Amino acid sequence: MAEIIDGRAIAQRVRAQVATQTQRLLAENIIPGLAVILVGNDPASEIYVRNKERAAAKTGIHSETFKLSATTTEAEVLALIQRLNHDASIDAILLQSPVPGQINEQAMQDAIAPEKDVDGFNPTNIGKLFANRAGYYPVANTPKGIMTLLEQAHVELAQRLVVILGRSNLVGRPLFALMEAQNASVVLLHRFTPDDLRHQLLQQADVIISATGVPKLVRADDVKAGATVIDVGITRLADGSLQGDVDFEAVAPKAQAITPVPGGVGPMTIATLLQTTVELAAEHHQVELEAGWQNI
Amino acid sequence: MAEIIDGRAIAQRVRAQVATQTQRLLAENIIPGLAVILVGNDPASEIYVRNKERAAAKTGIHSETFKLSATTTEAEVLALIQRLNHDASIDAILLQSPVPGQINEQAMQDAIAPEKDVDGFNPTNIGKLFANRAGYYPVANTPKGIMTLLEQAHVELAQRLVVILGRSNLVGRPLFALMEAQNASVVLLHRFTPDDLRHQLLQQADVIISATGVPKLVRADDVKAGATVIDVGITRLADGSLQGDVDFEAVAPKAQAITPVPGGVGPMTIATLLQTTVELAAEHHQVELEAGWQNI
Repeated sequence: MAEIIDGRAIAQRVRAQVATQTQRLLAENIIPGLAVILVGNDPASEIYVRNKERAAAKTGIHSETFKLSATTTEAEVLALIQRLNHDASIDAILLQSPVPGQINEQAMQDAIAPEKDVDGFNPTNIGKLFANRAGYYPVANTPKGIMTLLEQAHVELAQRLVVILGRSNLVGRPLFALMEAQNASVVLLHRFTPDDLRHQLLQQADVIISATGVPKLVRADDVKAGATVIDVGITRLADGSLQGDVDFEAVAPKAQAITPVPGGVGPMTIATLLQTTVELAAEHHQVELEAGWQNI
Repeated sequence: MAEIIDGRAIAQRVRAQVATQTQRLLAENIIPGLAVILVGNDPASEIYVRNKERAAAKTGIHSETFKLSATTTEAEVLALIQRLNHDASIDAILLQSPVPGQINEQAMQDAIAPEKDVDGFNPTNIGKLFANRAGYYPVANTPKGIMTLLEQAHVELAQRLVVILGRSNLVGRPLFALMEAQNASVVLLHRFTPDDLRHQLLQQADVIISATGVPKLVRADDVKAGATVIDVGITRLADGSLQGDVDFEAVAPKAQAITPVPGGVGPMTIATLLQTTVELAAEHHQVELEAGWQNI
């Protein structure tokens, strides 16, 4: 039976480290500041933003949420972003997705200063990631959190074959770059990959990461014995239960290590967002934080 | 026996189209302008820059070469780039690599305005490419030229397995993004990929692109019957002959289509540079060029 990678426990360790790092910054009179912009009344977004606020507060990060009405104009959102770009108390700016239809979400994302782009969505930051540039730049938090999970589970990546299912800008594409930077050989598959080709490549993979939102797409006969399987998908089924992309019950007995759904990748996203916020604050004040992931 | 993809002939068609497009722009009093910056006296670079100048002149593109001495300071190069960034007669700026050691090549590349970055090296342009953004942005010319070769040879990419050997920022990485945007399933391999894994994946590939500089790395038993093989590598052997990454004599009989070395990918780079220059000029003046590659 596989090692179950406990995302809740690892996320908890990340948060604890963020709290420690925040204390260190506070000792130098630096308060890491996160601004969250929420436009409209999407109930799921409201819950998510509240969770971010609470998690930030627990670590000592200063977070401010800007709740704008559903009829806010693009110019108003832009003015707020520009004000926050110039606000020295704010290190990280997050525009909660989705935004109402009158607002161009991508244009607003791009208006966030690259050095405060806590989601790593700015083309400049994406470009640095894909070019494997040296130095610090923010990277999308879900794939960054997956790298932490793999490191904490001591999964070897160098020289291994990694197959990623799903090529979103939120997960699959940045994860490709992060894996490649670890000297893995990486395959990126997507909805246009024929089923038989997907099956054939999955069977060869040392590490599988699925981020498609297709319930039970990855089955036992897709997985090589001893592979590591990371499930980013989460779908609510008709009966109300949550189902990942991976047929966990069938796959777990063959895998070396596997993430459950829920309790795997999910908890990492907010923890990693806080981590990135503290890193950005340290960057802005040129403070060196102690090396991270090895020590949590 | 495979179709031999004739890079010289296709490059010639690209240049002819560039000349036609330049005529159309000239008719509207728009002169596409290319600035080439050459620092120092590297003989290979001097030849290469001269070839670019000649090729540009033949198409009607205005090119200017700025030859700076080997002792030029970084501040002087930066001042020139900033002047060219603001010079409305210049649409495209190219910093010839390599530069002398006192100059930070990456910092100088990054100083080129993204909208004049004819090599597609700026993080903003790389980021747009990897995020598969809509709209026009410059893309590295060698991988862009490879896409033209494949289109001209009518090689299907959607739903096919593409294996790329070599992950440079000049070729392999941007090529990955271009292939993925065509809905290919793409594998990016590199020096840390074990030999047996490389062999195993190559054998499954519908399209192989090798850009490693390792002579005869790709052998007949690596290649599936009917695959397309694109050879970006070019190495001068001890006997003075040029050798690609692919064992052409052995592989050609198995392939559907294959590029020779020389005369395959090589001629596409300058032709594509000119193409990008004209595209940038059209962008800057908001002129729509007729659809390109389908019609050459």
